[in-house]
Amino acid sequence: MSFSTFGEIMLRLVPTGQADRLSTTSLFAVDYAGSESNVAVSLACLGNNVQFISKLPDNPMGQAARQSLDRFHVSTENILEGGHRIGTYFIELGSSIRPSRVVYDRAESAIAGIKEGEFDWEHILKNQKWLHVSGITPALSKQCAEECLLAVQTAEEMGVKVSFDLNYRRSLWENSDTAKTIFNRILQHTDLVFGNIGVLKDVYGLTFNGNNHTDQTLDALRKARHVFGVKQLAFTIRDHSSASVNQVGGAFISGDEPIISNTYSIEITDRFGTGDAFAAGFLHALGNGWHQQKAIDFATAAFALKHTMIGDIHTSSEQEINSIVEGNISGHVIR
Amino acid sequence: MSFSTFGEIMLRLVPTGQADRLSTTSLFAVDYAGSESNVAVSLACLGNNVQFISKLPDNPMGQAARQSLDRFHVSTENILEGGHRIGTYFIELGSSIRPSRVVYDRAESAIAGIKEGEFDWEHILKNQKWLHVSGITPALSKQCAEECLLAVQTAEEMGVKVSFDLNYRRSLWENSDTAKTIFNRILQHTDLVFGNIGVLKDVYGLTFNGNNHTDQTLDALRKARHVFGVKQLAFTIRDHSSASVNQVGGAFISGDEPIISNTYSIEITDRFGTGDAFAAGFLHALGNGWHQQKAIDFATAAFALKHTMIGDIHTSSEQEINSIVEGNISGHVIR
Amino acid sequence: MSFSTFGEIMLRLVPTGQADRLSTTSLFAVDYAGSESNVAVSLACLGNNVQFISKLPDNPMGQAARQSLDRFHVSTENILEGGHRIGTYFIELGSSIRPSRVVYDRAESAIAGIKEGEFDWEHILKNQKWLHVSGITPALSKQCAEECLLAVQTAEEMGVKVSFDLNYRRSLWENSDTAKTIFNRILQHTDLVFGNIGVLKDVYGLTFNGNNHTDQTLDALRKARHVFGVKQLAFTIRDHSSASVNQVGGAFISGDEPIISNTYSIEITDRFGTGDAFAAGFLHALGNGWHQQKAIDFATAAFALKHTMIGDIHTSSEQEINSIVEGNISGHVIR
Amino acid sequence: MSFSTFGEIMLRLVPTGQADRLSTTSLFAVDYAGSESNVAVSLACLGNNVQFISKLPDNPMGQAARQSLDRFHVSTENILEGGHRIGTYFIELGSSIRPSRVVYDRAESAIAGIKEGEFDWEHILKNQKWLHVSGITPALSKQCAEECLLAVQTAEEMGVKVSFDLNYRRSLWENSDTAKTIFNRILQHTDLVFGNIGVLKDVYGLTFNGNNHTDQTLDALRKARHVFGVKQLAFTIRDHSSASVNQVGGAFISGDEPIISNTYSIEITDRFGTGDAFAAGFLHALGNGWHQQKAIDFATAAFALKHTMIGDIHTSSEQEINSIVEGNISGHVIR
Amino acid sequence: MSFSTFGEIMLRLVPTGQADRLSTTSLFAVDYAGSESNVAVSLACLGNNVQFISKLPDNPMGQAARQSLDRFHVSTENILEGGHRIGTYFIELGSSIRPSRVVYDRAESAIAGIKEGEFDWEHILKNQKWLHVSGITPALSKQCAEECLLAVQTAEEMGVKVSFDLNYRRSLWENSDTAKTIFNRILQHTDLVFGNIGVLKDVYGLTFNGNNHTDQTLDALRKARHVFGVKQLAFTIRDHSSASVNQVGGAFISGDEPIISNTYSIEITDRFGTGDAFAAGFLHALGNGWHQQKAIDFATAAFALKHTMIGDIHTSSEQEINSIVEGNISGHVIR
Amino acid sequence: MSFSTFGEIMLRLVPTGQADRLSTTSLFAVDYAGSESNVAVSLACLGNNVQFISKLPDNPMGQAARQSLDRFHVSTENILEGGHRIGTYFIELGSSIRPSRVVYDRAESAIAGIKEGEFDWEHILKNQKWLHVSGITPALSKQCAEECLLAVQTAEEMGVKVSFDLNYRRSLWENSDTAKTIFNRILQHTDLVFGNIGVLKDVYGLTFNGNNHTDQTLDALRKARHVFGVKQLAFTIRDHSSASVNQVGGAFISGDEPIISNTYSIEITDRFGTGDAFAAGFLHALGNGWHQQKAIDFATAAFALKHTMIGDIHTSSEQEINSIVEGNISGHVIR
Repeated sequence: MSFSTFGEIMLRLVPTGQADRLSTTSLFAVDYAGSESNVAVSLACLGNNVQFISKLPDNPMGQAARQSLDRFHVSTENILEGGHRIGTYFIELGSSIRPSRVVYDRAESAIAGIKEGEFDWEHILKNQKWLHVSGITPALSKQCAEECLLAVQTAEEMGVKVSFDLNYRRSLWENSDTAKTIFNRILQHTDLVFGNIGVLKDVYGLTFNGNNHTDQTLDALRKARHVFGVKQLAFTIRDHSSASVNQVGGAFISGDEPIISNTYSIEITDRFGTGDAFAAGFLHALGNGWHQQKAIDFATAAFALKHTMIGDIHTSSEQEINSIVEGNISGHVIR
Repeated sequence: MSFSTFGEIMLRLVPTGQADRLSTTSLFAVDYAGSESNVAVSLACLGNNVQFISKLPDNPMGQAARQSLDRFHVSTENILEGGHRIGTYFIELGSSIRPSRVVYDRAESAIAGIKEGEFDWEHILKNQKWLHVSGITPALSKQCAEECLLAVQTAEEMGVKVSFDLNYRRSLWENSDTAKTIFNRILQHTDLVFGNIGVLKDVYGLTFNGNNHTDQTLDALRKARHVFGVKQLAFTIRDHSSASVNQVGGAFISGDEPIISNTYSIEITDRFGTGDAFAAGFLHALGNGWHQQKAIDFATAAFALKHTMIGDIHTSSEQEINSIVEGNISGHVIR
Repeated sequence: MSFSTFGEIMLRLVPTGQADRLSTTSLFAVDYAGSESNVAVSLACLGNNVQFISKLPDNPMGQAARQSLDRFHVSTENILEGGHRIGTYFIELGSSIRPSRVVYDRAESAIAGIKEGEFDWEHILKNQKWLHVSGITPALSKQCAEECLLAVQTAEEMGVKVSFDLNYRRSLWENSDTAKTIFNRILQHTDLVFGNIGVLKDVYGLTFNGNNHTDQTLDALRKARHVFGVKQLAFTIRDHSSASVNQVGGAFISGDEPIISNTYSIEITDRFGTGDAFAAGFLHALGNGWHQQKAIDFATAAFALKHTMIGDIHTSSEQEINSIVEGNISGHVIR
Repeated sequence: MSFSTFGEIMLRLVPTGQADRLSTTSLFAVDYAGSESNVAVSLACLGNNVQFISKLPDNPMGQAARQSLDRFHVSTENILEGGHRIGTYFIELGSSIRPSRVVYDRAESAIAGIKEGEFDWEHILKNQKWLHVSGITPALSKQCAEECLLAVQTAEEMGVKVSFDLNYRRSLWENSDTAKTIFNRILQHTDLVFGNIGVLKDVYGLTFNGNNHTDQTLDALRKARHVFGVKQLAFTIRDHSSASVNQVGGAFISGDEPIISNTYSIEITDRFGTGDAFAAGFLHALGNGWHQQKAIDFATAAFALKHTMIGDIHTSSEQEINSIVEGNISGHVIR
Repeated sequence: MSFSTFGEIMLRLVPTGQADRLSTTSLFAVDYAGSESNVAVSLACLGNNVQFISKLPDNPMGQAARQSLDRFHVSTENILEGGHRIGTYFIELGSSIRPSRVVYDRAESAIAGIKEGEFDWEHILKNQKWLHVSGITPALSKQCAEECLLAVQTAEEMGVKVSFDLNYRRSLWENSDTAKTIFNRILQHTDLVFGNIGVLKDVYGLTFNGNNHTDQTLDALRKARHVFGVKQLAFTIRDHSSASVNQVGGAFISGDEPIISNTYSIEITDRFGTGDAFAAGFLHALGNGWHQQKAIDFATAAFALKHTMIGDIHTSSEQEINSIVEGNISGHVIR
Repeated sequence: MSFSTFGEIMLRLVPTGQADRLSTTSLFAVDYAGSESNVAVSLACLGNNVQFISKLPDNPMGQAARQSLDRFHVSTENILEGGHRIGTYFIELGSSIRPSRVVYDRAESAIAGIKEGEFDWEHILKNQKWLHVSGITPALSKQCAEECLLAVQTAEEMGVKVSFDLNYRRSLWENSDTAKTIFNRILQHTDLVFGNIGVLKDVYGLTFNGNNHTDQTLDALRKARHVFGVKQLAFTIRDHSSASVNQVGGAFISGDEPIISNTYSIEITDRFGTGDAFAAGFLHALGNGWHQQKAIDFATAAFALKHTMIGDIHTSSEQEINSIVEGNISGHVIR
């Protein structure tokens, strides 16, 4: 199955070692990641043909970003070369009640600075089955928003299905209304929406019935289906036992009634990239033609498993995720 | 607000990497810390004018200790230069039921070897609002004990308020009676006592009513107020869910009845410096003239937050601590 | 007390740093370990005379494996020198629901390639009290199995007691029947068996009554005694609160009825070598002539404590383990 | 003596570990440096009162840059807070014939984005003896060039002496004529010029007589004095034995004839910040009123010594530099 | 231009950190390399279409070896999957007079264990211009030797040119006669030989006229041309100033008389992979149709440059190598 | 052959990583070393029976120091347990003209604090052939000096030969006369002296004829033989090409005329422990009964080789040193 994802891949810098604050560290661990490239890498690790579409500068960090995709067999053929810098973000990893913090330094990045007409979408999307975009890319610049729209419109015209992850990064938008306007335009061309109740509250001001996050999510799926006019929606669910232990699940609606997955109790290592792992897992399941319950179970297991790994990127194999689906969650050593 | 703290800052050596025992490590992470300098750094990170008073040798490790204070704008002007060595301590960090261990190598340190008259307290304490000392410094040497007394007496005479943290390091004292004798002399000049029920049991042999640590702490505050003859006492509270998860809180008495803070359930990263974070948080609150409940809430949030950070030193900003006070304890990523 | 253990010590390679998968790491932490050498090191750290019997190549990694034993005063006099390579294993440490994985690369190792007659067991076992073997060594090669049998037979003839840890590594055996056949031959010469309910299910197809692992283990001890024809059996018990928190215990049978130890709730750092720590603790207790309850309590405390340490090797002292037995499990700092 | 330096301090990222290319590294060593802040730090380590004038964003990296100055007692009082990002540069350290490479990512930095009137130079330069600027800052933005001019003009009016390091960063300028125009305007207010024959060739198109770099530098000093209309010029000299071993020296002109320092043969560890170490050494000597020969000898020893240290920053003490001046260059251990 | 290389890629383990001996290190830096894959990576970094042909096990280290090629766009399509282990080698890096040591652990590797008929050479070599093999692969096993012959025979028949690097690893062969016999058979199908005077002495017992290595190499080229019956030979030249500084060059013969390149004086960082860098540089030049002098100059610059980089792998771009050819060898910083 | 060495083994802390100054490092590499223990370890690595005699505290660092000897089979049976701390030293490694610096923190160490009668020398020296001491131990405390004397006297009486390394650590002595007085008393019982011309100048005020260090050393050997009244003296020779490249050699006198070894030109990695490597090499040669020329050649090769290794400790095997003696000094890779 052939997937395309479009967005920004950034230089990711995280303090390493004992003094783990951004302001006191003497070493940064280096990686390259971004929501849409994370989805691409995970899909490639699951055995799919994937390309990532973006723009990167012609300097060593731009090359390293490409190599970080090439090593997992994500095609980088349609990553344009140019611009002056790679977007960068700094992470201070939290622990227990202390939150993780992200400092973005992505203004004036290569992708943010694209001009009209740089991407030839008809050429790029030839022979693709799915195009995946997220709510982050349209926030990067006016042209990025236009390009997202053009991409999903072209996809629709070419019969390429569109999935849209409703990622909402507050600090990248003027206000939530601006986001909503653009999200709505993208949703008109969308076949599958990824999200959670948080973004529906923050961007759409919706409220949900239910005594817990699972029930609220089921209600949200039913409501969002009508608000968005999209038939298929797959949402993640997260309940907090404590700051370090969460119960995580997933739910999906296609016909009238949503279905839900198993729930996993997870000691969290890293929250980053978990939604991307969910999206990749779900797209992989759809691409394989798995039935709905198997699809949401697989995506949720991927979502849960990613919480146990450091870094934005999810490299688990289909077999590793299926082992979780099958209930091997006691942490016994595999020899 | 101007604060002074007096004590020892030491070279702190902690094994890093896979083999984390003191006897097998091949790398020590290097830091400089001590109870009173920790309070100073935290107060400086909260935006106060702070000086640290001590003595350090004229060698690279002595200079590094100074720089570790200078970088956070703690004044090092009244740190004497001389003596032969910096006090050193080695830490083996515990995990779950395995306790952390500290090996002190602080005999013959520069501050332990001070002679009468080296510190000109009237000059040092000019324009200061608070002098903070702890129960550790008087244990270092006979002259250190004398110097603590002289400092708090001079402070009292000059109208500088005195806070005293009842830190009791068993291995530094001959027996608890020696400690009690000196503590009592210092308490005569003290305006504010920091402590917990442990030290009241160990040094004063007191017992407390109550079915849990919170109730016992409230009882302890009422009793200690009379035993010590000090009007204001702020105590930390710690209950164990397990070795790695604690419920932590704080309580304060000024008038007749103690008040208590929220309780936090914390997955512990590092127990070191948590009492110092509490003391600094409380002094900061007093310095700002915040009301009692706000003060104990702020100090307790600082206490809880420090448990999630590696190292003795607490560098959180007022905003970061207030975010905990406001209930943002689910560990969500801040972007 | 003089103990001998016989088996393989391997090069142990574990990814270190942020990207912690075997396929993406840029650094391996280096150590040398194996079930039987782990038992030897722990016994030596507890103050016993111990020798480890094996074969290692004459190259730097073979020398390093020896040095890793010499440093803890395990005698390496009866480690033969020869063969072409040291057995190697790679570990991917798990977290929460993600399991740890071991990739063995131990084929054609020096010990696997031994020929008949290389070990002079009568000479080797002179003046020894106990010989400890495990179910791993006989799986390495046909001659390794023969050598295990010869060793335990010679031991029996010489009055050296034999302990046998029923370690079953599925990937090293053709099938469980092959393992059972050889295990049974070794059991004929065994005085003390270490194990758990898992191996009895996997190799012997036994099932046990009881609603929890503790009751099932007690039932297993009673049954296994008859099946194996061995009088003394010491088993570990493990219940899962979650993938990262386990309740661990131990039980022992000698007369008619088994006795059980305290149970510990443990946040797991590393599962490797925990059974070896239990065996070493129990042998140490027997060697000291401690009564049965004290023995199983000590072994279980060692078992629990090892879970809190990184690496296969358990270097805790008798005093550190006894402190756990005495109930010091709140994680307070020891200064 | 009171010194001010004005410019940009950047986040400095250098690959560490075995794979040392920018495109393949997994770790960046973190530091904060820049030509003018390097001069400030070195002057502070030599015991002077120094302030660094700049603008930094209100984020953890901006704070870390401040702390990197505070720790050495460089005053950061006149560093403005604002803007969106800290300038960043990436270094690939060379070796032998392989050159070091710098990738700048400093566009849109806080200091580049300053607006007219943000700095109150009369206030800032009060009680200062020297203002030090370099040819880098005017290349950052149009307003940065204006600010440099305003600073040196104000300094001249206030009787603060001006030193100007003719650093020419080709990639930051449109062409060398633009640089020359601005350099000339600054030179009108300059008391002391730092440079070398390279910049005089590249920017001014000058050529020099002499068979070696020393003779050419002496010729350059005589010529530049007239071209620039500045009385005092101190130049570094570098001859190549090989790519890793250089002969380094210094020369100074004040009256008619230049004087030269000793020459040092240096195995190079790091070329970065060597010119800054020279400038700081010379300014320190002037500040102390040392005679010319002593001044150029001290500056050259600092220049040579910096080549043996990793990083942009020179932290040697006056005593360490004087030891080189005195000829202790055999590398014997000091105990 | 399309290149194929055939051989083994291994797990490369090198001690890192202070204690840099194989027997005492606590960390191994991890990489994947081998003579023929090194040539492939360098050719890919120079912009060519390259595939590497081999066999790797289906485990994380096998996958990592593939990814190390994929990241540089070396095609891994014709790497078979199977076998039990990846060949491994350990390096102890030397310094000055202390030699580097390699400990091979490559017996029973996946490639060594191939069976007849696993590679379909006609399919594999379709549309290729060059096949590159070395003297290492035929030493790995009898079938590896047969496969090398089959590969070069098939190449010859298909019109694919063959280059053969006369790498001679003494410890992998019974004796030099065995090597010679197989080398001679491969040479019958070879268009281009890479080598140096060392291998001609060791394997062919040849001696050469000349007072230095350059003259001896020229003599060797003339002689070897006749002995081998191969028209084109490109040899590296190395003279020792000291153990850490070498003069390196290259020479090539095609017509009657050899031509030689510039010589470079190099401070050596790492000798590994230098011959592979030379071969890749020369093949790249041939592929581009550059004239002979340009080819040998480029290859020699690549050879020299690789000495300044850590690791077996040469990732320099065409531009970086050409900069050396153009004489930019003073080590100046490029900004 | 059985050797004993007596002295102090210390905790050795060296900054690691990019910022390599003592005052700015965030990591210390940990090792345990000292002149006399270095000699012991090297002798053990050469295959001899060796014991190290000292006193160490009963804490993790004391245990680690023992283990660092045990791992190389140096007997630690006669290391007393007691005292409060282990001596510590900090090293700042130099480069080129920048000297290495050592900061000692060894006052009040366990060995410095020994009391009369703690060592039973007759028991300790039973069956020993050589006792090795150095000029460092008598500088540690009055009792240490007494103990050295008692040791060498007892040795002489028991027929154990005594070697004495004239190590002179200026900072540990009041003045050179005190050193000379004690050195002279030890020399009365000495069979073999190690040294160099530096110590003869510094402590004995001798001057030597000759135009280079080799000639001066030969003169020194002739003179020192009479001054000391010792028949055998082995001296190291060092000439400076530059700070990083030295020519090193050795000379020995027994009969009338000294003999000299080959000279090696060495790029220096680390100067520490080189004299200890020389002493161990020479004692090993004597122990083997090698003739004088072979002995001084072997010792000098060991001396040279140690310069290429990081750390105080020399772990080369006899074969590795002999390879240098045989002239394999070009740095070729050994596979």
